[in-house]
Amino acid sequence: MIGVYDSGFGGLGVLRHLRAALPERDFVYLGDSGRAPYGGRDAHTVLDFAEQATERLFEEGCRLVVVACNTVSCVALRHLQQRSCGEGSTRRVLGVTIPGAEIAVATSGGHIGIIATKRTVQSGTYLQEIAKLGPHRVSQLATPLLTPIVEQGWEDTDIARLALDRYLALLPGVDTLLLGCTHYPLLLPVIHQALPSGVTVLDPAPWVAERLVDWLERHPGFDEPAARGQGTLRVLCSGDPTAFARHGQRFLGEPLPPVRHVAEVEGRLAHRDPSDAPRGQVVR
Amino acid sequence: MIGVYDSGFGGLGVLRHLRAALPERDFVYLGDSGRAPYGGRDAHTVLDFAEQATERLFEEGCRLVVVACNTVSCVALRHLQQRSCGEGSTRRVLGVTIPGAEIAVATSGGHIGIIATKRTVQSGTYLQEIAKLGPHRVSQLATPLLTPIVEQGWEDTDIARLALDRYLALLPGVDTLLLGCTHYPLLLPVIHQALPSGVTVLDPAPWVAERLVDWLERHPGFDEPAARGQGTLRVLCSGDPTAFARHGQRFLGEPLPPVRHVAEVEGRLAHRDPSDAPRGQVVR
Repeated sequence: MIGVYDSGFGGLGVLRHLRAALPERDFVYLGDSGRAPYGGRDAHTVLDFAEQATERLFEEGCRLVVVACNTVSCVALRHLQQRSCGEGSTRRVLGVTIPGAEIAVATSGGHIGIIATKRTVQSGTYLQEIAKLGPHRVSQLATPLLTPIVEQGWEDTDIARLALDRYLALLPGVDTLLLGCTHYPLLLPVIHQALPSGVTVLDPAPWVAERLVDWLERHPGFDEPAARGQGTLRVLCSGDPTAFARHGQRFLGEPLPPVRHVAEVEGRLAHRDPSDAPRGQVVR
Repeated sequence: MIGVYDSGFGGLGVLRHLRAALPERDFVYLGDSGRAPYGGRDAHTVLDFAEQATERLFEEGCRLVVVACNTVSCVALRHLQQRSCGEGSTRRVLGVTIPGAEIAVATSGGHIGIIATKRTVQSGTYLQEIAKLGPHRVSQLATPLLTPIVEQGWEDTDIARLALDRYLALLPGVDTLLLGCTHYPLLLPVIHQALPSGVTVLDPAPWVAERLVDWLERHPGFDEPAARGQGTLRVLCSGDPTAFARHGQRFLGEPLPPVRHVAEVEGRLAHRDPSDAPRGQVVR
């Protein structure tokens, strides 16, 4: 069973590509929607949440966790790996920034643009990963309005078009634009409209899936195909499961299985009955 | 010294009115900008953050804390009061929802509209506070794109106008619109444009200030005027102090004093040197 972790439901778009590439594998997805968005958060808080989420996925029976969230991959991946995947460990945590950097470098003829959350941009992780692959010109831009636009379901509106016009005017001359947040692929039609023709727009998710297939071949023992040859999917979220299923369908491209609720209890993400969630003024 | 607590810098707009009404009082403002926005968060998380923030303000020397944030006032005020202001306590925590409800009821001729964060709307607190004042027709709407628009500095753009047109079309027939988030007063010109003429738009902040003046008169002993007759202002934030000072000026209406950094350390908000804040991949 492969764990996929995201701050919300955006990572379901990554999961869609992972399942298409690995249809015989079991997946469990954890969306930390009750504490999303992570993009504007303190790095220490992101680390805490990421620890809790990967622990939950290990407890669900995963030995391999893919961090689908760009913000977490940029800020916390090395910490998660050092914490859980030391010498002799039977667990692994993989992220999306190295595949993203690879596909951007392989595609670009000279000037790579990256749009992402503020925290992803500030981390400089994409710049570092691209620099490891050779000298490239890279411009990155925080585009904090795009995720709320997608969460509101306003991708196909003048609001989305005007926001992208404003943002992308700040990245002149790029020949390749990497979408550094899992929400942004839903804006692909509008992003293409806002860019000069000839600019390649990259959703890294298909490449993340391709690299995972390759990784599994090179690292037997971290996950096995399902016994019956047809992988299953379980979904957990920390927010409202009903809203999660409704929004998540746009990213997964199909209806979600029943979504189970998890919530922070004494510093851990535990299974919870959503009817326990407080409403109104809380007194405890 | 009076403490003013907000999830970010929006509460500086409330502080502006408090200082204008009480120029002889000392204030200390705490903006939890490193963990903002609170609006989409789990109620338990909001409670934890609110506890930490009010504790910090008590430790700064305040006996009276005003929660300027609507989300915190709606979700956590009763909890904070029960925790810190029990029988015989010399501390008090006040919020903004009761003044907001009062001014809306006093103004409206029949149908009150409220725009706010998702968490404020879900709490139902404004509905409850208005119901205590008598039967009124109230429609509330979560408007999650408005805060990111203000934080991006795009109040005076077509994006703001189109978003407000879409949102306010969902509140037909209201005669009074209460701004249930401290960011929204910066959108006042655009909100007026998007509404039919004759609708009154209410920023509750001046009324919060008026009610506080009255409360201080009725409750001597919780705060004293400054010895020199001219109140001072100190500002703390949990995010980047430089960015906080830059953005905050738009809300406070004047330059901020030097902003000190606080950060969560073992479940408490402690004073920190901002150069300690992690950048890039974090390994701890």
